[in-house]
Amino acid sequence: MPKIRKILIANRGEIAIRVMRTCKELGIPTVAVYSEADRSALHVRMADQAYFVGPPPSRESYLVQERILEVARHAGADAIHPGYGFLSENASFVRACEKAGITFIGPPASAMDAMGEKTRARQNMIQAGVPVVPGTTEPIATQEEALAYAQKIGFPVMLKAAGGGGGKGMRKVEKTEEFDSAWRSAKSEALNAFGNDAVYIEKYLDKPHHVEIQVFADQYGTTVHLGERECSAQRRHQKVVEETPSPILTPELRAQMGEVAVKAAKAVNYVGAGTVEFLVDAHRNFYFLEMNTRLQVEHPVTEWVTGLDLVALQIKVAEGEKLPFTSTVPPRGHSIEVRIYAEDPARNFMPSPGKIQYLRVPGGPNVRDDSGVFAGFTVPNFYDPMISKLSVWAPTRAEAIARAQRALSEYVVKGITTNTRYLKAILAHPEFAGGDYDTSFLTREHTVLLGGEDPKLNEVALLASAVFAHQRDQKRAKTLPQKASPGTGGLSAWRMSLRTRRR
Amino acid sequence: MPKIRKILIANRGEIAIRVMRTCKELGIPTVAVYSEADRSALHVRMADQAYFVGPPPSRESYLVQERILEVARHAGADAIHPGYGFLSENASFVRACEKAGITFIGPPASAMDAMGEKTRARQNMIQAGVPVVPGTTEPIATQEEALAYAQKIGFPVMLKAAGGGGGKGMRKVEKTEEFDSAWRSAKSEALNAFGNDAVYIEKYLDKPHHVEIQVFADQYGTTVHLGERECSAQRRHQKVVEETPSPILTPELRAQMGEVAVKAAKAVNYVGAGTVEFLVDAHRNFYFLEMNTRLQVEHPVTEWVTGLDLVALQIKVAEGEKLPFTSTVPPRGHSIEVRIYAEDPARNFMPSPGKIQYLRVPGGPNVRDDSGVFAGFTVPNFYDPMISKLSVWAPTRAEAIARAQRALSEYVVKGITTNTRYLKAILAHPEFAGGDYDTSFLTREHTVLLGGEDPKLNEVALLASAVFAHQRDQKRAKTLPQKASPGTGGLSAWRMSLRTRRR
Repeated sequence: MPKIRKILIANRGEIAIRVMRTCKELGIPTVAVYSEADRSALHVRMADQAYFVGPPPSRESYLVQERILEVARHAGADAIHPGYGFLSENASFVRACEKAGITFIGPPASAMDAMGEKTRARQNMIQAGVPVVPGTTEPIATQEEALAYAQKIGFPVMLKAAGGGGGKGMRKVEKTEEFDSAWRSAKSEALNAFGNDAVYIEKYLDKPHHVEIQVFADQYGTTVHLGERECSAQRRHQKVVEETPSPILTPELRAQMGEVAVKAAKAVNYVGAGTVEFLVDAHRNFYFLEMNTRLQVEHPVTEWVTGLDLVALQIKVAEGEKLPFTSTVPPRGHSIEVRIYAEDPARNFMPSPGKIQYLRVPGGPNVRDDSGVFAGFTVPNFYDPMISKLSVWAPTRAEAIARAQRALSEYVVKGITTNTRYLKAILAHPEFAGGDYDTSFLTREHTVLLGGEDPKLNEVALLASAVFAHQRDQKRAKTLPQKASPGTGGLSAWRMSLRTRRR
Repeated sequence: MPKIRKILIANRGEIAIRVMRTCKELGIPTVAVYSEADRSALHVRMADQAYFVGPPPSRESYLVQERILEVARHAGADAIHPGYGFLSENASFVRACEKAGITFIGPPASAMDAMGEKTRARQNMIQAGVPVVPGTTEPIATQEEALAYAQKIGFPVMLKAAGGGGGKGMRKVEKTEEFDSAWRSAKSEALNAFGNDAVYIEKYLDKPHHVEIQVFADQYGTTVHLGERECSAQRRHQKVVEETPSPILTPELRAQMGEVAVKAAKAVNYVGAGTVEFLVDAHRNFYFLEMNTRLQVEHPVTEWVTGLDLVALQIKVAEGEKLPFTSTVPPRGHSIEVRIYAEDPARNFMPSPGKIQYLRVPGGPNVRDDSGVFAGFTVPNFYDPMISKLSVWAPTRAEAIARAQRALSEYVVKGITTNTRYLKAILAHPEFAGGDYDTSFLTREHTVLLGGEDPKLNEVALLASAVFAHQRDQKRAKTLPQKASPGTGGLSAWRMSLRTRRR
């Protein structure tokens, strides 16, 4: 397969920038596409070429397959990187790329098909000998059938939409009496969200952890896992903080889960970067949840501990190169990522789009900022409000937490509200520090975590401590230079003290 | 020795920030000092407390020992980190700290004494069996004596000031006829710079590389080297680009030099972080040059490949902890640092202080920005014009160069002129790519490296390529969407193309 000469990035925001960075390092020119809302976006500025593809919402621009393909042909791009979201897991788009003679940087359409629809993925995994959460493998036709099945596997159970994810059409049912209303609402939500009211049932696991395994496969059958990511810090099924290694995995469990993830990928003839998501219960049993057939948002933590560039690997695999390793790459140290959103935790996490008036990102040792914004940019209303992923590395987990806190404390953004205080509260929570936080952590500790968010409370605390410090200093030394706020009387304070001492 | 409770950082700019970052991660409060010119500086904002210490220049503020110590006492700081420069290699300050009962985070005064004065350091090294450049070990009294000695070790020779470094009072002499004028000018320059006209002679080495070894010693006699840094990319004896590993070192040579560096440190009972600088000639003989008894500007490249936090190690050693390793830490991958200066290469590298109107620092995988500035900050006229150190890591040297280029291309600073194009020209130079560049590289290739600096030339080139690309696109497709500059007519161009296609 020939070398890729030019890559169209069918995405926006931080992930478009992320892919371009690697392309730039590999010397591959890039083509950006942008919607009307992204006219002045960073990914447009950073690309070698940029094409307008339509107005928001995404279905009129970033999701219009034929338009993206037409831009690729016109710009002379011989490959498309889909990022995550948008067209990244759309098998029909992969087929359209193939037909157009354009390399899709991702798995083959057949692997997407095999993993795309949840019940089909479950069936495939059961066939491959991959443990799955006890439950139906296909949508259940009638409520009676469903209830009987729930009683068979035992409450609590989860009802889940077969047609899509993101928490839509999902209901936990604790007992028979709750079944009727849960069934109805799950089905109607599924219909609204996915145009498909098919629902299936799974055993509900107690205190489950979301632990996912990064896999990578080349076109020659070599399939390798690259360790795990602990993603249990979720709010409404959206990950907020991710880390690797997972604090709850033993080396044995890691090896077992890695092996099973490789088995899962091989079962669908996977090629490229993929993520096999598992639930790990309180007894450390693990169950296949789903496979994400694309680059994951939280891939930087894996890059930190392995030293690999996963986007470069994706491109090389797409070019037909062999993987440069045949077994897992031993991780070094610990990495944590926090997702910075333009949202207001105090107002029920309402998105907070608007113009970024000032931005200063953290720096120094082992801090990485993956951002799609800049000072002066107006965060649009139309897309996911994540503006940056801040990730850190340190030799140990404790040091990584301290570094993430330090980095967050350096982050300055003005003009929009962000969730940085909420993130700091998560990192500071004893349950997070302890390492054994399950997927209910953020919901369960919601109030505590938002407590750190009350600006009034914090200001009172700050004021109190400042007054205390001032009084203490006053007591300790009368004639010495006072603590001078920068720019206010520092010089005169010092001179005064000099005069005092000269007496 | 008790834990350090509060650290005064007797420095400014990026290194003050660097030290504070680690303090923050270790939970140690910090005290900043600042001059009138640094009233609004970042290090003042980031510290827990900040004290004004006087006007510029430094001898009236950052260098006033008793004032720094008084601030430390008043603020309750039980330790002082000196950074580099300023008081960092001042043995009398170390003694003053001791007397005041304040921990100086650095080596003991005796080690500084032993390494501070160059001829004394040479004598100590010769005694310890460390190879030194052939030359006198003490200042030469008369010109006649000096000439006779030069003729004995053979031209070319270097005349060097005994009282200080930084290229002042340094002269290369090729032959007898040049000796008289070189001698006079070296002595007068030395007198002006250091108040001491003492000069000594060294054999001039052909195509020497500047390679330095990082050493670390605890208070219990464990002394370890942490690999080398190649620092041959120098302009007027000032390092501009540094990297590790050195492309010219074999594993054997690295081990030998490491062993010798440890021997040098042990000979002076060194404690803490130090750097033993060597010259390596074309035949890969290496000679002791000097020891820097402090943290080095370019320490981040060592941190990248070892995963260590050298500032944290300094603090722990100062607290009396043992080093957490007893032999060298094997490096992983390759790291390059470039120094970004507020200066104008096209105007003979004249400093370019002023207000930073806009700043965007690079991000993404394995890029580190160590900066002391921010958007809105006015870079003062009084200090070293370095505003940032940009360092990168990658598995291989070639990838590290590509990454450094990519990172530099993302760096946006408005309001002041910087040397980023010059740095890009260095990284792009075939001699740098080849890896065997000696200390004459930047001087020898001055014109070539500045060629990339001519903004007119570059604009012409950019314009030409844009015109070419436009013409090519015009030829290829008449009815397809044109490449749209963000914000200018993209939408209408697209719509027009839609209309065109609908015909």
